[in-house]
Amino acid sequence: MIPIVKADGTVELEFIRQLKKRSGEVDEKVNQAVAQIIAQVKERGDEAVREYTVKFDGRAPENLEISKKELKEAENSRAPELLDALRRAAENIADFHRRQVQQSWLETKKDGVILGQRIRGLQRVGLYVPGGTAAYPSSVLMNAIPAKIAGVQELIMVTPPGKDGRPNQDILAAASIAGVDRVFLMGGAQAAAALAFGTQRVPKVDKIVGPGNIFVATAKKQLYGVVDIDMIAGPSEILVLADETAKPEFLAADLMSQAEHDKLASAILLTPSQEIAEKTKEELERQIRSLSRKEIIEASLRDFGMILVCRSMEEAVDFANELAPEHLEVCCANPMEYIGRLDNAGSVFLGNYSPEPLGDYYAGPNHVLPTSGTARFFSPLSVDSFIKKSSFIYYTEDALREAKDPIASIAQAEGLTAHAHSIQIRF
Amino acid sequence: MIPIVKADGTVELEFIRQLKKRSGEVDEKVNQAVAQIIAQVKERGDEAVREYTVKFDGRAPENLEISKKELKEAENSRAPELLDALRRAAENIADFHRRQVQQSWLETKKDGVILGQRIRGLQRVGLYVPGGTAAYPSSVLMNAIPAKIAGVQELIMVTPPGKDGRPNQDILAAASIAGVDRVFLMGGAQAAAALAFGTQRVPKVDKIVGPGNIFVATAKKQLYGVVDIDMIAGPSEILVLADETAKPEFLAADLMSQAEHDKLASAILLTPSQEIAEKTKEELERQIRSLSRKEIIEASLRDFGMILVCRSMEEAVDFANELAPEHLEVCCANPMEYIGRLDNAGSVFLGNYSPEPLGDYYAGPNHVLPTSGTARFFSPLSVDSFIKKSSFIYYTEDALREAKDPIASIAQAEGLTAHAHSIQIRF
Repeated sequence: MIPIVKADGTVELEFIRQLKKRSGEVDEKVNQAVAQIIAQVKERGDEAVREYTVKFDGRAPENLEISKKELKEAENSRAPELLDALRRAAENIADFHRRQVQQSWLETKKDGVILGQRIRGLQRVGLYVPGGTAAYPSSVLMNAIPAKIAGVQELIMVTPPGKDGRPNQDILAAASIAGVDRVFLMGGAQAAAALAFGTQRVPKVDKIVGPGNIFVATAKKQLYGVVDIDMIAGPSEILVLADETAKPEFLAADLMSQAEHDKLASAILLTPSQEIAEKTKEELERQIRSLSRKEIIEASLRDFGMILVCRSMEEAVDFANELAPEHLEVCCANPMEYIGRLDNAGSVFLGNYSPEPLGDYYAGPNHVLPTSGTARFFSPLSVDSFIKKSSFIYYTEDALREAKDPIASIAQAEGLTAHAHSIQIRF
Repeated sequence: MIPIVKADGTVELEFIRQLKKRSGEVDEKVNQAVAQIIAQVKERGDEAVREYTVKFDGRAPENLEISKKELKEAENSRAPELLDALRRAAENIADFHRRQVQQSWLETKKDGVILGQRIRGLQRVGLYVPGGTAAYPSSVLMNAIPAKIAGVQELIMVTPPGKDGRPNQDILAAASIAGVDRVFLMGGAQAAAALAFGTQRVPKVDKIVGPGNIFVATAKKQLYGVVDIDMIAGPSEILVLADETAKPEFLAADLMSQAEHDKLASAILLTPSQEIAEKTKEELERQIRSLSRKEIIEASLRDFGMILVCRSMEEAVDFANELAPEHLEVCCANPMEYIGRLDNAGSVFLGNYSPEPLGDYYAGPNHVLPTSGTARFFSPLSVDSFIKKSSFIYYTEDALREAKDPIASIAQAEGLTAHAHSIQIRF
């Protein structure tokens, strides 16, 4: 079970070091296997994809592409409660992400100068959605909706066929709700390669997003540069800041909601109250009995969980900023006060009624968040993840005449005389 | 000299394939040497940096850190023309990039819900500036100014000492003008590693930006994830679209202004006019004689240059979008008309008086641009390159009650029962 530890300035730093070790090196064998799959798909296209699908997924699907009609049928076949939930979630997600949209702009300056920045959605994006037990409709919504709001012209989803050669119907329903344009039934490194290079049937994309197993993640890393990719997600993390007003039964439930993802997931409670620490541990022991993913939760809490009793809330905030967790809950009397002090976190959940699963599924902010301490410099997936910018410059003859001496001066200092020449020849 | 080729739908695609081959694999020996340098600096800090500096730069500088006073002295020691030029350029760059600043925001929804996105500058950023012949003060301005505007709290520059153990004074002057906070005299992979992990004297940063040789670029790639990095720049590229109104002497000068960067640089002219094509070639032959970097220009134009005579401006635009060049000049009668049609380019230069060096040095938009066709999905360096975002969620008890059934529904569909439990335990 989760240990209770007193903060002393070294135990917590040692814990951070341990956590960092979770994201290990990729096996050289995986790297090589993926490189070969990519090379084959690049060269032989659909034929290679089909061979790998038979090899890894058991059999090739009858139809490589899912029709619009099938998508709509999948949507209509879902239970009304689930359908209603997905639609309400989609609305909240769209509402939040619409506020992230940036506009192209231009400015005019003296002598007729025009400068500007053009912003537009990527032309084509590929979205990878895992099959099996990691087939999450919420993941489809969180990736697809910002892409469509950014103005991506064609959003192409790939997902592996199940053992029966058919796709997961919840995934298709979510794709239909989110406005995915085309869906291909393929998975693994072969699907990522098909998206990056294009095949006879699959169009070439500009960026690949979405979670996947080690083969998909390795393929995305290897294809970076041919296409853009999103972050490579590490194991999930939650850090909960709690003062003496927090409710141990809530805290325990929230810690376990992240711990259930994965034996490598990490759940941490930070509190200045020894009583809260002990009561939360009791609650964990009590509540865990009724949960279906008990074994995963136990392993995760034991290996990467901690209840840290700190000397003050200030110390707790400093530790949170040092750890830079993916999810950060603030279960304190005045949660809003902490917004300006929590500098490194993917998403911050404020108060006793903002548990982390609210953000995973429903509230609107994205659930694709930086992990493993990278919230120090990475941001959540957003509309910005699906745009490209370019600048433009229009100078008149008068404006360039005014600028010619300074430009020549810098060019000469840098020894780039043809740069100076290209300005000077105009006068 | 540069070939004149008639577009036929295949010759131009073959040319693009040839261009792509320029960015080859990194030598395994370089990879291993860099990995060793990083490991040493991570373990032994300043001592290792010092050893590598002696080994690669000849001797260690007397003082590792350049004082504020030395920066100011370097600024005051520059020729008035250069100083004036750098200051005017800095002002234009700051003016353009200030328009890119995004604000934090929050929205309030019914039942007391508050959602928001917080945006702030990275805490600490490292800027690599090469020494020797690639010591470009313009590069300091283009990297440092957006970082400071983004709100980066501490901007740390590293640059290798020259053979006399002293730094380039133009670089220091530019750092002083741009508001760089601290400067350390170190270069190569050892400097990148010192920034990523921190040493006894060098503080640990969140992101490393700036150009560098193959060792620096390889170190940045290997350190990605420990810190964020900017793009790895490929050889420079210019594509010029010219109709029959263009001026061959300008076109020739502009092509050479990029060709002089590097024997691997690529300069391409696209025009429907055979006459413009031929006259530009004559101008190239005439003008090149007087240029100091003649040899580099000749090699670059021969190996990676092309004058492509296309059948129409539409075809030229399609080719430009396919190639996705770093720099794109539009030397046509109505240049502004092209803004909406040129979908893939780092920076677009419109009209006969907007030559590319205007953007390199002076106009304001950034000169750090996506190369090798990556303008399809990457953007110029900008204020956005130096920020991080995080979202926050505050729900009240009433608001969560309203949301609890949909959330539980999705969690159950995904088999994540502890997620559902964390919502349900609150009611």
